[in-house]
Amino acid sequence: MKIGIYGYGNLGRGVELAIRQNADMELAGVFTRRDPATVKTITGAPVYAAADVNRFENEIDVMIICGGSASDLPEMTPALAKHFNVIDSFDTHARIPEHFANVDAAAAETGHTALISAGWDPGLFSLARLLMNSVLPDGKDYTFWGRGVSQGHSDAIRRIPGVKDARQYTVPVEDALRRVRNGENPELTTRQKHTRECYVVAEEGADKALIEKQIKEMPNYFADYDTTVTFITEEEMKRDHAELPHGGQVIRGGTTGKDGSHRHVMEFSLKLDSNPEFTASVLAACARAINRMHSRGMNGCKTIFDIAPADLSPMDPADIRKKLL
Amino acid sequence: MKIGIYGYGNLGRGVELAIRQNADMELAGVFTRRDPATVKTITGAPVYAAADVNRFENEIDVMIICGGSASDLPEMTPALAKHFNVIDSFDTHARIPEHFANVDAAAAETGHTALISAGWDPGLFSLARLLMNSVLPDGKDYTFWGRGVSQGHSDAIRRIPGVKDARQYTVPVEDALRRVRNGENPELTTRQKHTRECYVVAEEGADKALIEKQIKEMPNYFADYDTTVTFITEEEMKRDHAELPHGGQVIRGGTTGKDGSHRHVMEFSLKLDSNPEFTASVLAACARAINRMHSRGMNGCKTIFDIAPADLSPMDPADIRKKLL
Repeated sequence: MKIGIYGYGNLGRGVELAIRQNADMELAGVFTRRDPATVKTITGAPVYAAADVNRFENEIDVMIICGGSASDLPEMTPALAKHFNVIDSFDTHARIPEHFANVDAAAAETGHTALISAGWDPGLFSLARLLMNSVLPDGKDYTFWGRGVSQGHSDAIRRIPGVKDARQYTVPVEDALRRVRNGENPELTTRQKHTRECYVVAEEGADKALIEKQIKEMPNYFADYDTTVTFITEEEMKRDHAELPHGGQVIRGGTTGKDGSHRHVMEFSLKLDSNPEFTASVLAACARAINRMHSRGMNGCKTIFDIAPADLSPMDPADIRKKLL
Repeated sequence: MKIGIYGYGNLGRGVELAIRQNADMELAGVFTRRDPATVKTITGAPVYAAADVNRFENEIDVMIICGGSASDLPEMTPALAKHFNVIDSFDTHARIPEHFANVDAAAAETGHTALISAGWDPGLFSLARLLMNSVLPDGKDYTFWGRGVSQGHSDAIRRIPGVKDARQYTVPVEDALRRVRNGENPELTTRQKHTRECYVVAEEGADKALIEKQIKEMPNYFADYDTTVTFITEEEMKRDHAELPHGGQVIRGGTTGKDGSHRHVMEFSLKLDSNPEFTASVLAACARAINRMHSRGMNGCKTIFDIAPADLSPMDPADIRKKLL
């Protein structure tokens, strides 16, 4: 199957590398809004101008769209779904129903198959939540994120005057995790679930106390959390914070039995050295499924909840049953 | 939807209780090979003779078959699949391809839908293995079981002369778990992955040293493991070992990136107070999916790999996207 990559940042590069790990996939090309002549791919895959993408309608089985959720994907995914089978990792939770409707209309109209909100959250974590809720109807679930870099929170710190660079780690509170894993199903406030660690490079002469205060009091981003701020040098930032690790866990505690006294705890967890490369790996597996679903005439917009798991695998169904069941 | 339970032991009773937790399900009846007059259900559901089951062909949407894998299910599931949509928890790994073929032939011939090998392993753990292998093609996965009661190993000890009762716990080796969770992808022997703890009630005057030796040297069951044997009283057995807890984890460590240097660890784990009740809860959710797949004309034998996750949930697809994605 032939894959296209639309948008070539961290995620796009991750998809390029993920395709290399899947023998049944081939990278047909990378599409960029920059001047293609200035973009060099890791594997030597050809680079084309985003404006020319529709010329490749018949040469690409699935287009993986690697744009941002804020402004790119709401436009790109419906537009491209008119010409291609598409996948995105749209993660603005509140706007998913609207995005789904737009993409569904575009894809259904032209007989294409689309998948939105793929990745790990939304994505694998959503799937874990659905499975756990279906199996244990009487219970409560929790999602913890981290320890990992939140790019949105890092960006928010960088917008403060006097800040040269910043990296923010979201960290689950160990005691909360322990209680949830223990099946206690506690009520937890925002502050009790995660802490936020900020590493900041300040401009020369900047008022560090003021920067720290501005971070800690920032509404939505930091005010509801226990936040620590550590000032470091540019060299330390480069040396110790160049990677984009992330992870987290979905945990559900539930009960069964005659008097509901039997407790069960289900957990799905991820520990990732590279958030964009892992997300890209999920997108690659999903591309396989979308291609198969399209070949069966299952058109319109889908989510990970609609994918029969066997469709994610390169293995033959009989082989899957024999080796993995 | 109307559910039937065929076989009324620990698992059948668990299914009866699980149905009570799902508002869209109703228990049409329990079928037993014993004299129905001698069987009293927990919820007061009617009990019928197994021999009369085919009279209920038009009154049951899905029959959940709660028999043993050794001799019951290979006969029961194909026979019942000729008259009902069916689900079983067949777990004799080596015979899955053969069982699948038999059930598929029976179900397809009569336009029924069947699901085999549902539960947690095979079942949710199989699904975890498939997802993890699909997302991280370059890696290695591990399944650990326990701490939990293995009924097969407990039975094996009970067959030793001089043993009145026995309970065997399978326990993962902490250091092996730690290394796997750390992404080290170690090579592990059978002995390095699990230990076996045996609690034994001996007959009066029995040779305990001989019993211990016979347990520890038993091929397949114990010889390849570090096994501990503790003799206890009948009262202690009743007081401390009456429950059937179990659990375990599927873990895959894999790599991505330009030079494969980014490591990722995915883990799915279960900690269960009652193995049969949790297995039953999985079967109930699967019954919903099989009923829906049947209504769409998807006949023949299926496995958990063929179920689109949304079909496991009582929630409406738009609601699932809004609340769980």
